[in-house]
Amino acid sequence: MAKVSIVMGSNSDFEVMKDAGTVLDQLGVEYEISIVSAHRTPDRMMEFAKAARKNGTRVIIAGAGGAAHLPGMVAAYTELPVIGVPVPVGHLKGEDALFSIVQMPKGVPVATVAIGNAWNAGVLAAQILGIADEKLLDRVRAYKDQLSDHVKKMQLPPLP
Amino acid sequence: MAKVSIVMGSNSDFEVMKDAGTVLDQLGVEYEISIVSAHRTPDRMMEFAKAARKNGTRVIIAGAGGAAHLPGMVAAYTELPVIGVPVPVGHLKGEDALFSIVQMPKGVPVATVAIGNAWNAGVLAAQILGIADEKLLDRVRAYKDQLSDHVKKMQLPPLP
Amino acid sequence: MAKVSIVMGSNSDFEVMKDAGTVLDQLGVEYEISIVSAHRTPDRMMEFAKAARKNGTRVIIAGAGGAAHLPGMVAAYTELPVIGVPVPVGHLKGEDALFSIVQMPKGVPVATVAIGNAWNAGVLAAQILGIADEKLLDRVRAYKDQLSDHVKKMQLPPLP
Amino acid sequence: MAKVSIVMGSNSDFEVMKDAGTVLDQLGVEYEISIVSAHRTPDRMMEFAKAARKNGTRVIIAGAGGAAHLPGMVAAYTELPVIGVPVPVGHLKGEDALFSIVQMPKGVPVATVAIGNAWNAGVLAAQILGIADEKLLDRVRAYKDQLSDHVKKMQLPPLP
Amino acid sequence: MAKVSIVMGSNSDFEVMKDAGTVLDQLGVEYEISIVSAHRTPDRMMEFAKAARKNGTRVIIAGAGGAAHLPGMVAAYTELPVIGVPVPVGHLKGEDALFSIVQMPKGVPVATVAIGNAWNAGVLAAQILGIADEKLLDRVRAYKDQLSDHVKKMQLPPLP
Amino acid sequence: MAKVSIVMGSNSDFEVMKDAGTVLDQLGVEYEISIVSAHRTPDRMMEFAKAARKNGTRVIIAGAGGAAHLPGMVAAYTELPVIGVPVPVGHLKGEDALFSIVQMPKGVPVATVAIGNAWNAGVLAAQILGIADEKLLDRVRAYKDQLSDHVKKMQLPPLP
Amino acid sequence: MAKVSIVMGSNSDFEVMKDAGTVLDQLGVEYEISIVSAHRTPDRMMEFAKAARKNGTRVIIAGAGGAAHLPGMVAAYTELPVIGVPVPVGHLKGEDALFSIVQMPKGVPVATVAIGNAWNAGVLAAQILGIADEKLLDRVRAYKDQLSDHVKKMQLPPLP
Amino acid sequence: MAKVSIVMGSNSDFEVMKDAGTVLDQLGVEYEISIVSAHRTPDRMMEFAKAARKNGTRVIIAGAGGAAHLPGMVAAYTELPVIGVPVPVGHLKGEDALFSIVQMPKGVPVATVAIGNAWNAGVLAAQILGIADEKLLDRVRAYKDQLSDHVKKMQLPPLP
Repeated sequence: MAKVSIVMGSNSDFEVMKDAGTVLDQLGVEYEISIVSAHRTPDRMMEFAKAARKNGTRVIIAGAGGAAHLPGMVAAYTELPVIGVPVPVGHLKGEDALFSIVQMPKGVPVATVAIGNAWNAGVLAAQILGIADEKLLDRVRAYKDQLSDHVKKMQLPPLP
Repeated sequence: MAKVSIVMGSNSDFEVMKDAGTVLDQLGVEYEISIVSAHRTPDRMMEFAKAARKNGTRVIIAGAGGAAHLPGMVAAYTELPVIGVPVPVGHLKGEDALFSIVQMPKGVPVATVAIGNAWNAGVLAAQILGIADEKLLDRVRAYKDQLSDHVKKMQLPPLP
Repeated sequence: MAKVSIVMGSNSDFEVMKDAGTVLDQLGVEYEISIVSAHRTPDRMMEFAKAARKNGTRVIIAGAGGAAHLPGMVAAYTELPVIGVPVPVGHLKGEDALFSIVQMPKGVPVATVAIGNAWNAGVLAAQILGIADEKLLDRVRAYKDQLSDHVKKMQLPPLP
Repeated sequence: MAKVSIVMGSNSDFEVMKDAGTVLDQLGVEYEISIVSAHRTPDRMMEFAKAARKNGTRVIIAGAGGAAHLPGMVAAYTELPVIGVPVPVGHLKGEDALFSIVQMPKGVPVATVAIGNAWNAGVLAAQILGIADEKLLDRVRAYKDQLSDHVKKMQLPPLP
Repeated sequence: MAKVSIVMGSNSDFEVMKDAGTVLDQLGVEYEISIVSAHRTPDRMMEFAKAARKNGTRVIIAGAGGAAHLPGMVAAYTELPVIGVPVPVGHLKGEDALFSIVQMPKGVPVATVAIGNAWNAGVLAAQILGIADEKLLDRVRAYKDQLSDHVKKMQLPPLP
Repeated sequence: MAKVSIVMGSNSDFEVMKDAGTVLDQLGVEYEISIVSAHRTPDRMMEFAKAARKNGTRVIIAGAGGAAHLPGMVAAYTELPVIGVPVPVGHLKGEDALFSIVQMPKGVPVATVAIGNAWNAGVLAAQILGIADEKLLDRVRAYKDQLSDHVKKMQLPPLP
Repeated sequence: MAKVSIVMGSNSDFEVMKDAGTVLDQLGVEYEISIVSAHRTPDRMMEFAKAARKNGTRVIIAGAGGAAHLPGMVAAYTELPVIGVPVPVGHLKGEDALFSIVQMPKGVPVATVAIGNAWNAGVLAAQILGIADEKLLDRVRAYKDQLSDHVKKMQLPPLP
Repeated sequence: MAKVSIVMGSNSDFEVMKDAGTVLDQLGVEYEISIVSAHRTPDRMMEFAKAARKNGTRVIIAGAGGAAHLPGMVAAYTELPVIGVPVPVGHLKGEDALFSIVQMPKGVPVATVAIGNAWNAGVLAAQILGIADEKLLDRVRAYKDQLSDHVKKMQLPPLP
C-alpha cells in the first residue's frame, strides 16, 4: 500500500495539492490521493485517519483553506506524522489557513509548510520516509543537488 | 435537559468561558458545561456533537484558542446552531482563533463572537432560544434595557 | 410575515448577500430582503430594527463592508438574534469589516460568519429557526448530508 | 453652550478620553463631556447627534474601542465634523477600533486620530474651531511653539 | 483665495485625490490643488505649509501612499487642520500609509479618512468650513439627505 | 548516536526549546542539544548541518526568533527532515519568526510548528522516527491516549 | 572590480532587482549582478559572501522573497554593509520577506528598503559609496535635485 | 567632527537609541547624539539635515516611533546615507513605525533595521564608514568574530 496519503477537502483544492503528487512521482514515492472533508464528511475523515496506520500509510499530507481544520483533525486521530498545506482561498489569501494549521495545541503537531506550497509537502514526506530508506534519502539529496545545478545554470538577461 | 451546552477543550479555558454560564443564569436559561477537546478527545467530541440534538440541546457554545477547531468540528457533526468563542491564548492573542473559528466553508457556519467574549455567546444563545420563547426574549429585552440604564447612570469624574 | 430579514447598506452588496436568499429558498425558509444603511439612512435602520420583532421577524441577517456598522447597530436596537456578514470591499479586503462586526461589546453580540460568506448566514438563520421547527432542522440535516454526498462523489483528475 | 462635545460609550473609556478635555482646557476651549453608547443607548446617541448642531456644538469628539461604532454613528446623524478616537481595549489593542472608525463609507467621514490619542482629538477640535477664531488659532500656534521649545530644551543623559 | 488646499506628492496620486475636488465642487467650496512632495520637494512643502494660513487657506487635504509623510509634515508646519488621505499604492495596499498618517504623536494630529477615500476628505473639509458658514453646513446636510434618498430609491434585482 | 538533534541560536532560546527535550525524554527518544547560530556562527551551522546525516542524526529540530534563519539554512544543507520552532522574541511576538520559518521556497521545506511550541517539535520528531520504529509509534499513541485521559478527568469548578 | 554586487536567489527575481542596476548605471557606479541562492546553493552563497571584501566589493545588495534568508545569511558571512530588498512574491505579498529581512538579531544588521523597491537599494548603495567619493555624493545630490525638478514640473489634469 | 550623527525625536526614545552609541563606542567610532523632532521642531530638523554633509557627518542614524517621519524626512533633505530605527512605542508595538520608515518612495531610501534594534544601526553605521576605513572594517570583523566566540562558549543547563 502507498506510504503517503494525500487528502484535501474538495476537488477545488486539487490545483494546489497536485504538486505534492508530482514531486513524489519524481522522487519515486508511491502515494494515494483522495478527497476527505473535515467539515462535510467528518465520519469519512475520522475513518480515514484512524485506519491510516494499519493500512500501511506512514505519512499524511492534508491541504485545506480558510478555517482549514483537516490537517489538525487528522492529526487528532492518528499517531502518524501529518503535514499541513495552507491552501490560499478566499479573502485572507491563506493567512487564515496558515494560522489554523500551524497553531496546534501541545501534543498534536501538524508539520506546516508554506502557503500554497504543496510541492514542499511532497518533498518533506519523502524526507520523512527517507529516515528509513537510505536510497530515498539519497534521491532527495540528488534532487536538492539538481535544484542547486539548476540555479547555477541560470542566466540573467542584460539590463535594458 | 438543558437547552444550551457549553463546551471547551480544557479547564484552562474556563476562566474565559464561565461568563457564558453567568449570563445564562441571569437570563434564566439552563445549561450544561463540559470539557470536550477536538484534538485530544476527538471521539468524545464526535459523540457529544452527534447526540446533542436528540439529547434536547438546542444551542451549543464552543470555546477554543490557537488552532481552535472545536467550534467548527462540532458544527461539522450537528445541524444545531453552534456559537464559537475565540479564546485569547498564546502569542497571537486570539487573532489565530478568530480566523480559525469564523472562516468556515460554505454550508457549515459557526456563529462567532468577539475574542474572549464568552458573555456574548451566552446572550446570543438566549436570543436564539428566545425565538421560540417570547418570555425569554422579553428577558433579553429587559437585560438590554438594564445595560442602557446602567450606562445612563454612569458618572464621569471631574478632570484633574 | 417572513421570519428572516436580510438587510444590506447598498445594492452594491447584493452580489455577495444574495447567497443568503438562495440557500434560504433551498431550505424552504421565507425571507425579506431590503436596503437599510446605518450611515446613510440611520432613521430607517432604527425603525427597521425596532419594529422587526413585532413584525414577525425572528432572525436578521445584516451585511456590510468597511467600517461595517450595520449589523452591530441593528443589534443595538433589537433583542432578536442578528447575523453579520463581513462584505469584502475596499483595500483591506474585508478584514476591517470582520473586526467591526465581530468585536462587539458585552451584551450586544453579532453572530459573525466568514468574510463574504452570506451563504452561511442563510444556513445559520435556518438552523436558528430550526430550534423551534423540527422539520426545518431536518431539512438542514438533509442539506448537510447532501454536502457530504457531493464531496463523496467528487473525482480527482489524474496527475499530469 | 460649549462648542466641543466629547462623548464616549462607557466610563471605562474616561482614562483615555480625558486627555481631550485637558488640552482643550489648556487652549481655552469650552467643552462638554458625557457618556453616550451607540450599542447600549442607541436612542440617546441618536438624540444627542441630531440635536448637537442646534445646541450650539460645532465639533464632536467620540471615543470607542473594539467594534467602535460610536464615532461613525454620530457622523451618520449630524453634519458637524466628528473626530474619532480608537480606544485601545481588548485583545486586538485598538487595531480593530482603528479600522472600524477610519474605514467609513463615501459621504460620512470620521476624522480619525491615533490609537489612544485623545489628546490629539482635543488639539484637532481646537484647530477646527480656530478656522473661525483667529485668536484660538494663534493659541494653537503658541501651543505648537511650546512643544517645539520643550523639545529644544530636552537633555540627553550621558551614555553609560 | 481658496479656503481648501489639496496637495499630493505626485501626479500618480491624482486618480485617487481628484475625488476631493469633485465633491468640493458639488458642495460649492473653492479649492486649490497642487503637487507638493515631502520627500522630493521638502522645501516647497515647508514653504507651502508655512504660508498656508496667511494665504487664506483654512483646511489642507494631503494625500500620500507608502511611507506617506506628507500629511504629517504639513501638520508639523501649520496650525491649520490637516486632513490625511492614505493612498493605496504598492504591496501593502495602503495599510502602511494608514499607519503612517494616523499614528501621529501628541500635539500634531492629522484628521485621517479611509484608505483611498479622498471623497470623504472633501466632505470633511466642507464640514470643517461649515462651522463658520451655516449655509455651507446646510449644503452638507442637504448632501447627506441626498445620500439618504439615493439609498431609499435603490432597487434590488430578483434572486435568480 | 542520538537520532534527534535540537539546535538553537542562543542560550536565551533554551527556556522555550527545552520542552522538545522534555517530551523526547518522556517518549524514550535520545537527542542531542546544542547551540548553533545561523547569523553568528554560520560556519559551525554549515558543518553541523552537512555532517548531521552521516553522524546518525535522522531528524533536526531548530528553533529561532526574529528573522529566524536557522531552520531554513539547516534545511538548505541537509536532506534530513528539519522541524522549525518560531521562538516568540521581540516586538512582533513570533509572527516574524513564523513567516521566516514557514514560507520556505520550493524544494527546501521546514516542518513548522506553532509559535513557542517546542514541545510539539519533540512530538513530531518522535512521530517521524516512529515510521521506522513501531514501538516508538506505539508510545506516541499511548502518549496521545494519556492526553485524552487527562482531558477526560478534568473537572470544572462551579460557577460563582 | 565592481564595488557593488547585486545578488538574488533566482532569475525570477530579476524583474524586481534589475532596477538596482538601472539606477547605479545612471549614477555612474559599476556593479556586478549574479544569482546566488541561500537555500539552493548555500555553498556558493557562503563563498560569495566570504570572498566579497577581498574581491573589492564594498556594498552588497541582496534581494529575496518569502522566507527571504539571502540578505541575512550574506550578512552573517561578511563585515561589508548588506542592503536587503524584500521581493513581493507569493500570497503574503512581501510582508513575509520584509519581516525576514529586517528583523535581524543584534550584531548582524541588514539595511532594508521598501518591498519591491530595488531602485532604492541602488540609490542607497551609491550613497554608501559616496561617503568615500565626494563626486559620487554630488551625483546623488544632483539626482535628488532632478527628482525635485521632475515633481515641480508635473501638471495636474483639470477635474472632470 | 563626528562622522556619525544619532538623532531622535524625544528623550523618551533615548532608552532604545543609546545602544547605537554604545556599540559605536566599542567599535571606536565617534558620534554625536541629539534631539531633533520632525513634527515638533521641523525647522531644526531641516537645518540639521541640510547642514549634515558639510559639517562632516557621513552617516545619520534616526530613530522614531508611531508615524515615525524623522528618518524619512532627514533623508529627504540630505544625500548622506540615513539609517532608520523603528522605536516600539504605543499600541502597535513598532509595526507602524517599521512601515513608516521602510516604505520610502523611489529615490529616497532609508536603511531600516529591526524594531527597537538601535544596536544594529550602530553596527551598520560602522560598516558603512568601514568602506573607507579598512581598519574600522577589520574592527567590525573582529566584533563579529567575538559574537561568534561568545556563542561558541555558551553552555546549556541540563534539562530538568
